[in-house]
Amino acid sequence: MQSPPLLISQLLRYGTELHADSEVVTWTGTGSRRMTYAEVGRQAAQLAHALRSLGVEGDDRVATFMWNNAEHLIAYIGVPSMGAVLHAWNLRLFPEQVVYIGNHGAATVVIVDNTLAEPLSALLPHLPNIRHVIVNGHVEEATRAALGAPGHVEGVHDWSTLLEGMPETYEWPEDLDENCASSMCYTSGTTGSPKGVAYSHRSNVLHAMSVAMTLSISAADRHLVVVPLFHANAWGFPYVAMATGASLMMPDRFLQAEPLARFIETERITTGAGVPTVWNDLLQYLDTNPADVSSCRMLLVGGAAAPPAMMRAYQERHGIDIVHGWGMTETSPVGSIAIAPPSAEVGSDEYWRYRTAQGRIVLGVEARLVDGDGREVAWDGSSVGEVEVRGPWIARSYYANGTETATELEEMTAKFDDGWLRTGDVGCLTRDGFLILTDRAKDVIKSGGEWISSVALENAIMGHPDVAEASVVGVPDAKWGERPLASVVLKEGATATPESLREFLGDKMARWQIPERWALIDAVPKTSVGKFDKKVLRKRYADGELDVTTVEIR
Amino acid sequence: MQSPPLLISQLLRYGTELHADSEVVTWTGTGSRRMTYAEVGRQAAQLAHALRSLGVEGDDRVATFMWNNAEHLIAYIGVPSMGAVLHAWNLRLFPEQVVYIGNHGAATVVIVDNTLAEPLSALLPHLPNIRHVIVNGHVEEATRAALGAPGHVEGVHDWSTLLEGMPETYEWPEDLDENCASSMCYTSGTTGSPKGVAYSHRSNVLHAMSVAMTLSISAADRHLVVVPLFHANAWGFPYVAMATGASLMMPDRFLQAEPLARFIETERITTGAGVPTVWNDLLQYLDTNPADVSSCRMLLVGGAAAPPAMMRAYQERHGIDIVHGWGMTETSPVGSIAIAPPSAEVGSDEYWRYRTAQGRIVLGVEARLVDGDGREVAWDGSSVGEVEVRGPWIARSYYANGTETATELEEMTAKFDDGWLRTGDVGCLTRDGFLILTDRAKDVIKSGGEWISSVALENAIMGHPDVAEASVVGVPDAKWGERPLASVVLKEGATATPESLREFLGDKMARWQIPERWALIDAVPKTSVGKFDKKVLRKRYADGELDVTTVEIR
Repeated sequence: MQSPPLLISQLLRYGTELHADSEVVTWTGTGSRRMTYAEVGRQAAQLAHALRSLGVEGDDRVATFMWNNAEHLIAYIGVPSMGAVLHAWNLRLFPEQVVYIGNHGAATVVIVDNTLAEPLSALLPHLPNIRHVIVNGHVEEATRAALGAPGHVEGVHDWSTLLEGMPETYEWPEDLDENCASSMCYTSGTTGSPKGVAYSHRSNVLHAMSVAMTLSISAADRHLVVVPLFHANAWGFPYVAMATGASLMMPDRFLQAEPLARFIETERITTGAGVPTVWNDLLQYLDTNPADVSSCRMLLVGGAAAPPAMMRAYQERHGIDIVHGWGMTETSPVGSIAIAPPSAEVGSDEYWRYRTAQGRIVLGVEARLVDGDGREVAWDGSSVGEVEVRGPWIARSYYANGTETATELEEMTAKFDDGWLRTGDVGCLTRDGFLILTDRAKDVIKSGGEWISSVALENAIMGHPDVAEASVVGVPDAKWGERPLASVVLKEGATATPESLREFLGDKMARWQIPERWALIDAVPKTSVGKFDKKVLRKRYADGELDVTTVEIR
Repeated sequence: MQSPPLLISQLLRYGTELHADSEVVTWTGTGSRRMTYAEVGRQAAQLAHALRSLGVEGDDRVATFMWNNAEHLIAYIGVPSMGAVLHAWNLRLFPEQVVYIGNHGAATVVIVDNTLAEPLSALLPHLPNIRHVIVNGHVEEATRAALGAPGHVEGVHDWSTLLEGMPETYEWPEDLDENCASSMCYTSGTTGSPKGVAYSHRSNVLHAMSVAMTLSISAADRHLVVVPLFHANAWGFPYVAMATGASLMMPDRFLQAEPLARFIETERITTGAGVPTVWNDLLQYLDTNPADVSSCRMLLVGGAAAPPAMMRAYQERHGIDIVHGWGMTETSPVGSIAIAPPSAEVGSDEYWRYRTAQGRIVLGVEARLVDGDGREVAWDGSSVGEVEVRGPWIARSYYANGTETATELEEMTAKFDDGWLRTGDVGCLTRDGFLILTDRAKDVIKSGGEWISSVALENAIMGHPDVAEASVVGVPDAKWGERPLASVVLKEGATATPESLREFLGDKMARWQIPERWALIDAVPKTSVGKFDKKVLRKRYADGELDVTTVEIR
C-alpha cells in the first residue's frame, strides 16, 4: 500500500475542492455573511503566499486573536497546510496570561479581528517576537497606529489588502512529516502557568475522522461552532468540516441566546458544539421567545457536564439531543462521546444513564483507570480510579521552549505515566466503555486507601432543604491520612446543624465516607469562572480561619 | 502528540470490548446463529493461540476458504491482529486459479467451512505449502481423511476442538509497523494470472474510518455483508464493524433472494453491501413475496453500476437508498461513494445524476483524469480521461513472490504511473468530485487524439427499436489511428441497415464519433460472466471473419 503522510492540506483540498459549494457563514449581529469553501480555499492560498512574503518559514508560529469567523477558519487550515504552526491565542485569559502564552509560543505574526484590535494593542508592547499584525476588518487610524507603535512591529496590514493580488492557489507541501506540529493550544492554567500542547498533522486528521464518524457528521450538516477556535483545538470542528463538507456556522462575538436562536433559525442549523451554560441560556430564551429550531438534531456539550434536566427539556420540548463529550486540551480534545447504545430504549433509565455519562471512549483512544497505588481498576461501572488515556491524538508531553524552570519541567512531566496521560479526572468505566466522572483527582479525598468523591458528598449535602451551597475538601487526618471537611452555606433562617446534616447523609453515603468535620460559612469562595475555589478553603482550614465543628462517629 | 501505529488489533479491541454486546449473526438456512462481539474477541484470541501452536509466525499467511460467517470474521480480524497475514481465497475462481493464488500467497494453514471441505480436498494435493487444515463445522470421516491425504498436510483440526481450552485473551503485539501487511486479496484475473494486493494495517484502519464516515455507519446499524469476505477486501466491512460497533449479518452460503429477504425481516437489518444482481433479484422477489424490509435504509452497490430503474424502484417502493460505490481490489476497495449533496433536491434530475454517478471521491483518495497523451484533464463533468488514484489505501505495487516472469513483472508495473494507480476506468469528474465512468480504458476508442466511449455508442445504438444487441470495439484506421466498429444483432424480422442506423445516431452522438464500419451479426460473443467479449470481436475483425459494411461520411 502507498503510505503518504496524513496532512491538514489534504483536508483543506478535500473540503475546498470536492465540497466547494459548502459554506462558512459568519453572523454579523444583523444577518449572515456567506463564503463558499471554494473561496475559503482561494483565501487560504492567498494567506499562505502573504505569510511567506512576511517571512514566515519552516515551523514558524502564526498567532490568531480572533472570534469564530470565516477568516479564522481560513487561518486555521491555511497556516498548518503551508507547514507553519497555528497558535490561536485564548481571548478569555487574563492579559498577563495572553502575554505569557504569546511569548512562550513565540509567533512572529498575529492575525487580529478589528473588534479585538484595541485590547491587542495594549498587549503588543509585551510581545517582542511579533513583527507583523494582520487586521481582519476595518480599524480607525488611531487603532492602527497603536498596533504599529511598538518598535518590534514592522508592519500592520489589512487582511483583504494583503491578500489581494496574491495567487489563488498554493503548492501545499506534500513531503511534511505527518508527526510534525500543525498547531498549538494552551491549557487555561488554573494552577500555575498555562501549558502548551502541540498538535500534529497526523493527530488532527485522525481525530477529525474519529469525531466525524462518532457524531455522524456529513455534508448535509450545518454545524454551529460556539466553542471558540482558540479553546481546546476547537474540538476539531474546523477539520471535521473540511473532512466531511459540513458547512460551518460561525457566531463571531454574538454568543448570547438571542443571536444564537436567530442564527439557528435563519441558517437551518443542524448541529452545534459548546459549553453547557450557552445551551442552558438558549433553552431559557426559547421558552419565552419562540424560534424555529426544528432543523437542529444535536448539540454537543463539553467542558462540563450538562444538567440532566436541561438534556431532557431539549429532547422533550425541541427534539434536540444534547450529547456529552469529554476531553481536554491535552486530548485534542475528544476522548469520549455519549451516544446511547441501540439496546437502551429511548427514554428509559438505562438510556439516561448512558446519556448523562461523559460518554463512550471513542475509536482511537485507549483508557484505563488507576487507583492511588498505581494499580489498574476494573471496568465494572463502580470501581473508581484516575482516568489515564493514550492514543494517536493524546499529548506525549507539554511543549517546552527551554525557558522552563526545573519545577515547571517536573510538573509538566508528572502528568505522564509510562506513555499514558494522567487526565486528573477520577471516575469509573462501565463494561462497555462509558466513562462516568466523579471528581477531579486533586479534589478526591484519599481516606485510608479508599477514595471519597468530594462532588458526590457535595451533591448529597446540597440535597438537604436547608442547604444553599456546600463544598467538600480533603484535610489531613492523623489516622486516615485524609478526611473530608464539609463547608456549608445555609439558606436564610435555616436551622440545620452539623449533627443534623450528618444524620441526613446516613442513608445516602457509606458510613466511612460521611465527614466528621463541618464548618458553617457565609459563602463558598469561587474562581473567576464561578467554580468552587477549593484551594482557598484548604488554605483557610490550614490557617485555622474556619470555625470547625467535629461530629464524632458514634 | 503520541504516535502509536494504527493496527487492526486496535479495531479488534474496540469492537470486542467497548461494543461487546454487538453481534455477528450467521444465517443457517432456517434461522439465525448469534455470537456477541465479546465472544468474537475470545475466539479471535483462541484462534491466535491455536495458530501459534500450529507454527504460524511472523508474517506467515493464513488462508480461508469460507463463506461469510462468524468464524470467517474471527479469522479476518484475529489473524492480522497477531501479526500474520490473512489470505481469503476466492471460492468463485476456477480450481486452477485457486491453486495459483494459493501457491503464490503460500499460506501454511487454511481454514475451511465444512460445506466447502470437499472441493478443497480436490485442490489440496496441488497446494504443497499447506501443512494444516482447520475445519469449521462437522465433516464426515471420509471427507476428513481426504483433506489429510496429501503427504504435506500434517494435521486436520476441528475449529472448536482446536480452540477449546486455549486462553481467551492474547497479548496482541503493539509494536508492529503499521505499514506491514495485514491481509491480501487477488484480482480475478480476467486477463492473465490473478494479481495479489497486500493491504497494510494502516491502510485498513484508515479505509475503515473513511467508509464508516462516508456511509454514517454506527453501532445502531445491523449490516448485511453479501459481498464475500474473499472479494476486494470485503469492501472493508469487517473492519468498519469493529471500528463502529455495527452488528454484522452474515448470509453464509444463502445468497438467494428468498433467504436474504427472510434475513432482513428477521434481524431488522438496516444496511447492506453487494453487487447489483443480488439486489435486483431481491427486488423481483419482494414484488411477489411481501416481506417487512422497513428496517433497511441503505444498500451499497459495487462491482458494477446499478440499473437506474432498480434504484428508483427501491426508493419508491421500499424507502431504501441504493448507493453506488466504486473501487477495485487495488483500492481497498472504496474510491468513491454516491451520496447526493444536500443542494440537490431529492427526486430531481440533478439528484439522480449524482445518485447514478459512481460517486464522490472519498476523503483520503486523490483522483485525476489523464488523457491518451498523459495530460491531466479538467474536472468539468464532460472531459474524459483514464482515472488515476493515489492515497493511503491505494496499492503501491502488486505482490510479487519472485516467481514472476519478466512479462508478468512488466504488466504489473505498467499499472502504476509515477505514484498513481491507473485504474483502467475511463470517465469524467464533475467540479465537485463525482466520478462518472464511461468505459474501460482497454475498450475506449482512440480516434485522432480524441476518445470515443464504446459504451456510450452501444447504448445509443441499442436505443434503436430494431436492435437487440450491439457491441462496439476500436479497430485500426490508417488516418485516425483507431475508429469504432459496430457489431449489431437485429431483432427478428427487423429491417434496419447500417445506413439507417448511422442516420439514427445523427442527433445522439457527435458526428466524428459515429462509426463508419458496421457488421450485422447473429449474436454478440459473451464471457463466462455474461459481459460482451470484445477480445473475440477484435480477433474476428482482424481475421476477416466479419462481414463489414463501410458507410462513408457524407
